[in-house]
Amino acid sequence: MENEKPQIGVIGMAVMGKNLALNIESRGYTVAIYNRTASKTETVAKEHADKKLVPSYSIEDFVASLEKPRRIMLMVKAGAGTDAVIDELLPLLDKGDVLIDGGNTFFKDTMRRNAKLDESGINFIGTGVSGGELGALQGPSMMPGGQKEAYDLVAPIFEQMAAKAQDGKPCVTYIGPNGAGHYVKMIHNGIEYGDEQLIAESYNLLRNMVGLSVDEIADIFADWNKGELDSYLIEITADILTRKDDLGSNEPIVDKILDRTANKGTGKWSSANAIDLEIPQSLITESVYARYISMMKDERVAASKVLPKPAGNVEFDKQEVVEKIRKALYFSKIMSYAQGFEQMRIASQHYDWTLDFGKIASIWRAGCIIRAQFLQNITNAFDKDANLQNLLLDDYFTDITARYQEAVRDVVALAVKSGIAIPALTSAITYFDSYRAAQLPANLIQAQRDYFGAHTYERTDRDGNFHFSWYEEQ
Amino acid sequence: MENEKPQIGVIGMAVMGKNLALNIESRGYTVAIYNRTASKTETVAKEHADKKLVPSYSIEDFVASLEKPRRIMLMVKAGAGTDAVIDELLPLLDKGDVLIDGGNTFFKDTMRRNAKLDESGINFIGTGVSGGELGALQGPSMMPGGQKEAYDLVAPIFEQMAAKAQDGKPCVTYIGPNGAGHYVKMIHNGIEYGDEQLIAESYNLLRNMVGLSVDEIADIFADWNKGELDSYLIEITADILTRKDDLGSNEPIVDKILDRTANKGTGKWSSANAIDLEIPQSLITESVYARYISMMKDERVAASKVLPKPAGNVEFDKQEVVEKIRKALYFSKIMSYAQGFEQMRIASQHYDWTLDFGKIASIWRAGCIIRAQFLQNITNAFDKDANLQNLLLDDYFTDITARYQEAVRDVVALAVKSGIAIPALTSAITYFDSYRAAQLPANLIQAQRDYFGAHTYERTDRDGNFHFSWYEEQ
Repeated sequence: MENEKPQIGVIGMAVMGKNLALNIESRGYTVAIYNRTASKTETVAKEHADKKLVPSYSIEDFVASLEKPRRIMLMVKAGAGTDAVIDELLPLLDKGDVLIDGGNTFFKDTMRRNAKLDESGINFIGTGVSGGELGALQGPSMMPGGQKEAYDLVAPIFEQMAAKAQDGKPCVTYIGPNGAGHYVKMIHNGIEYGDEQLIAESYNLLRNMVGLSVDEIADIFADWNKGELDSYLIEITADILTRKDDLGSNEPIVDKILDRTANKGTGKWSSANAIDLEIPQSLITESVYARYISMMKDERVAASKVLPKPAGNVEFDKQEVVEKIRKALYFSKIMSYAQGFEQMRIASQHYDWTLDFGKIASIWRAGCIIRAQFLQNITNAFDKDANLQNLLLDDYFTDITARYQEAVRDVVALAVKSGIAIPALTSAITYFDSYRAAQLPANLIQAQRDYFGAHTYERTDRDGNFHFSWYEEQ
Repeated sequence: MENEKPQIGVIGMAVMGKNLALNIESRGYTVAIYNRTASKTETVAKEHADKKLVPSYSIEDFVASLEKPRRIMLMVKAGAGTDAVIDELLPLLDKGDVLIDGGNTFFKDTMRRNAKLDESGINFIGTGVSGGELGALQGPSMMPGGQKEAYDLVAPIFEQMAAKAQDGKPCVTYIGPNGAGHYVKMIHNGIEYGDEQLIAESYNLLRNMVGLSVDEIADIFADWNKGELDSYLIEITADILTRKDDLGSNEPIVDKILDRTANKGTGKWSSANAIDLEIPQSLITESVYARYISMMKDERVAASKVLPKPAGNVEFDKQEVVEKIRKALYFSKIMSYAQGFEQMRIASQHYDWTLDFGKIASIWRAGCIIRAQFLQNITNAFDKDANLQNLLLDDYFTDITARYQEAVRDVVALAVKSGIAIPALTSAITYFDSYRAAQLPANLIQAQRDYFGAHTYERTDRDGNFHFSWYEEQ
């Protein structure tokens, strides 16, 4: 505790930075801490005076305090703030030092910073950190990318601070060069949007189509959490639904919460990237759009008074339909992950990484928001075939689609007839039916494009590009 | 013909530039033409020796040949090529000259170029031009943005060269400052993707769910073109379906065309922009994704052999379902335009334009790919209420949704049970049901986000941001 030089330093003492510093310290390390506003550093140091935290009140002192090669974790607001801190640090660092950006940084910014710092011999790791405040403190899932030799310098610390899966393995692995870590975190966040939307839609069906009470639905989610849907988000949903308003009404808190889902701008990056790389990532995108339309609350309330309701006379067996909704949720979750992993596969080629998809699934098993038993099946699939083109082609997942697809179709048909919007669940079956279609009607669109724009078309029976003489009478 | 100075010049003699030059010349103007590769200019001049085209073989001669203030239309490949030509032109131009970019340019590039040239006193108009090669020659729909005083200098020419709607009005209007014109063209292209996808899905249902022949479907589209679906794309679809293979098989040409729809990269901009501005533009985006998945032909063929088929035992009356598909197509087209116009409304605020939505609809009535009778209803809606928040709230459109929604629900349910993917038609009803929902399950997602990330939540009964103490036992 006395004269030991800190093995790592953390810049930024907001809640995520503070909790990560405490997490690292709890593994036996001495941790330097620094915040631009000195009082924050002081507060943390005082509150945790019994811990091996070494506060500094100038960035020079902070850098000077560290063991070499220095390991410095930046936990500052992503964006211009990150560049500003890097500019301050750069003259103080030596070749071989390792900067680590643990913020929710756009992966292309990480690629840029990694390349620029590399010119000065400074290593730069961009790492996704998922698990919220509690995860940061107790053990997050971590997705680091950057120079492999730099990762090796921090790996012992990362492996201790990360969450541990059921088999005891740490939820961290070297993801790949430059922006690979932040890219995978971006996909994680997109998948998280999808998971949350699928759960919300399932809840909506149970509540407004099946007509169950909040308490009954809480029991259903608790029950689902014992089976193949076992996951953090299902677990907390069950818990949320048991909670009563803490401001006096004693109604379920969920009924007091306004139906506007904000976003912090990071989830939509994965959809923008899918559009850019030309990957059909419909489920996450529909989830992003569902958040946007949720924000239009006033417009929706106004429209609800003008636009007609559906006839909505649907009939079903309540017990049966609850189980069908469970199947639809699991089936749709599989479609979402199939799209997300397909996106990572194509990105890995596009950005010249060599992502290990089985390992990525395995480090999401604990610590992060999307942690779930189900991820083991993805790891298993890639263990069987590292070059698997799409998750759906693995036996486990193909089998689920065979057993569950009719339930999904029933649920979607019932919801559409009931007038309950389930954009994510619907896009799942649509993706499935598109992906397994040897023939799509895209030939007609090619004909249209050749007709009005002479864009040419390909043929089914020979190679080449052809143009049809549409304007000559036959 | 002899000594008259050209009133306008066109740079770029590929097919679009050549046809626009010929179009302008046909309205009584003398047109200077120039192409970097001189032989192209020469060929056009020779082929049209009887026309008032004035070829130049250096950019200096070209600029010197023009009446002042100069009007120069760039018809070059969008991107770096445009900047290169502008850099060449700049030293040759005088204050008050008007550069016009008629390419498929990204609107933010137009904003940048407009601002930069404005510093030198050069006007810069970015104009969307839709209608393909034939439209360029005979009269396109044009969407010009830039300095209003510069537009006034070209308006007489543009109004003569543009297509004329049934009421004789030219399909061109001043859209707004800087990138507004190219923005509206981008939305036009997105809507075009949606229209094409909706038609393709309807065709697919008629063919593979209803089981009709290509000839029968050709008749149906021809019939639909006489009613409220009357439009260029429906018209050419009917024509396409009557055409037989010109390479010997005598089968319908559509059956010889490979089901891979390419894209030129401009359609996806509108979806990326919707994601950026946080606007729920699901139908166009699903159409973009449908193109992407169509490109994965080999993967689909492989998947079709592995993934299970649906039971698919659906029953329906053939005649009835054909009419329901027509209604679903029209209803879904309305949803697509509602989304597109909502996107323009929000963009108009965001980029500080004052778009006139009624006028925009009116200049799409002829010349462009999405030209349709139906657009008059949009103009009427905005004539009645210039501040209409969403098309669906206009009486005409509300009434259609009331009369058609049950048909749409039936078609979607049948398609999902049949295993035929109709992502765009499905997203239409989903959007409708989301938009008219006073209550969405987004409250549950807000609860989740507050639970794992302390993101706070809003309440239904009072203002402010709240945090629930999830981790304290109750």
